[in-house]
Amino acid sequence: MRICRFRRSGVERYGAIEGTSVRPLSAAPWAGGLADGAPVPLAEVTLLAPVEPTKVVCVGRNYVAHAKELGNEVPKIPLIFLKPSTSVVGPQDAIRCPEQSREVHHEGELGVVLGRTLTRATAAEAREAVFGYTCLNDVTARDIQREEKQFTRAKGFDTFCPVGPVVETAFDPLDASVVCRVNGDERQRGYTRDMAFDVYALLAFISGVMTLLPGDVVATGTPEGVGPIRRGDWVEVEVPGIGVLRNPVT
Amino acid sequence: MRICRFRRSGVERYGAIEGTSVRPLSAAPWAGGLADGAPVPLAEVTLLAPVEPTKVVCVGRNYVAHAKELGNEVPKIPLIFLKPSTSVVGPQDAIRCPEQSREVHHEGELGVVLGRTLTRATAAEAREAVFGYTCLNDVTARDIQREEKQFTRAKGFDTFCPVGPVVETAFDPLDASVVCRVNGDERQRGYTRDMAFDVYALLAFISGVMTLLPGDVVATGTPEGVGPIRRGDWVEVEVPGIGVLRNPVT
Repeated sequence: MRICRFRRSGVERYGAIEGTSVRPLSAAPWAGGLADGAPVPLAEVTLLAPVEPTKVVCVGRNYVAHAKELGNEVPKIPLIFLKPSTSVVGPQDAIRCPEQSREVHHEGELGVVLGRTLTRATAAEAREAVFGYTCLNDVTARDIQREEKQFTRAKGFDTFCPVGPVVETAFDPLDASVVCRVNGDERQRGYTRDMAFDVYALLAFISGVMTLLPGDVVATGTPEGVGPIRRGDWVEVEVPGIGVLRNPVT
Repeated sequence: MRICRFRRSGVERYGAIEGTSVRPLSAAPWAGGLADGAPVPLAEVTLLAPVEPTKVVCVGRNYVAHAKELGNEVPKIPLIFLKPSTSVVGPQDAIRCPEQSREVHHEGELGVVLGRTLTRATAAEAREAVFGYTCLNDVTARDIQREEKQFTRAKGFDTFCPVGPVVETAFDPLDASVVCRVNGDERQRGYTRDMAFDVYALLAFISGVMTLLPGDVVATGTPEGVGPIRRGDWVEVEVPGIGVLRNPVT
């Protein structure tokens, strides 16, 4: 199942994509949404971020090669941080470079969308609580991150968390790849088998700190190859089996 | 005006406290709530956290004496970080010490509750966007904070953000004090005039990074005197003019 959120005639709804059309849902499927209304041609809708999370929990240095490229070790336990819900934007939405930074970087990632509440779970329980997967760009003001140590400001600007285009439920996160392109040139390519902590281990760990709620998003870390994006660029995060998340930079 | 949220007969509502009773509101006042129903005796309700924020933005090292006690400088610009909404609890709710930490600390703070959406604002605009003020405890697993550098995990555990008991609108944040007691013994006492960045400057700064939404909370930093709390303790954060936020530790 491929879940999206869309706008049509000024109304925003969740939907299930079926071929070239979207079947509207009464709410997010992780909030009990059911089919509600006639299918609409995909060509007639604007896709929005397919989630409205209460929080986006991110994981730093989860691919060995990326940790090394920034001069870090892979931590012994997952290094977590938060992006605010106000940073989330959808496919085609602009990533706005803030005036406070001269070095904004892309970080293509696999995102996990929770289907159920998860607290102090095992990896097996975490697996059962996943709703699906999406593409995510953990946009980062690298200069601010470097000087400030805390990641919040560097990664928390409005528009710094593109998510989408869809949430795919039929997906194996243990055998997946993540690709990031800038203006069509490949910059990042990683394989989830190279993660220091796999998706289910991450969810279990995070749920031992903070309760994850339905619709919350966990960003699973970025592979090596992070680099700058500039006004006028287009950046793409592709996870084969899910889709391509494209955003202009302004 | 003193705003609370309460539970009565299993129903949770916002309310305005008038003497010894609560007048129910149709929604949070910062979401357009209006008087809705007959007043209820305060003695018959259970007070809840008076806010349901999409995010809690905190400020580190905002009192010179506290920055020094942990061996830090006051930063040249505010140091911000996030606590997840899942960490918020209300008056009388238990602060649960997680098994991952052996050193949980209280950090009594003045909390600001937003009344309007605030983006890239001046200090004067920020002042107009404040709804009111509350007491907040930025509970911190100090051992985890020390070893991990990122504050998210150390400060993000469920129950690590007691807020309340009310949101007070008639309050001057530039001439206020914050007191924290453990089992009745005073541990922290600070004056907002000693903040490195005052409340309006903080809001302006934060809104230049991330949009603040109605009901969002900004925790304005803790004065010196942070220290351990243990199972069986009661911790109180008092801001004269607002009230006393009391929580047991379990």
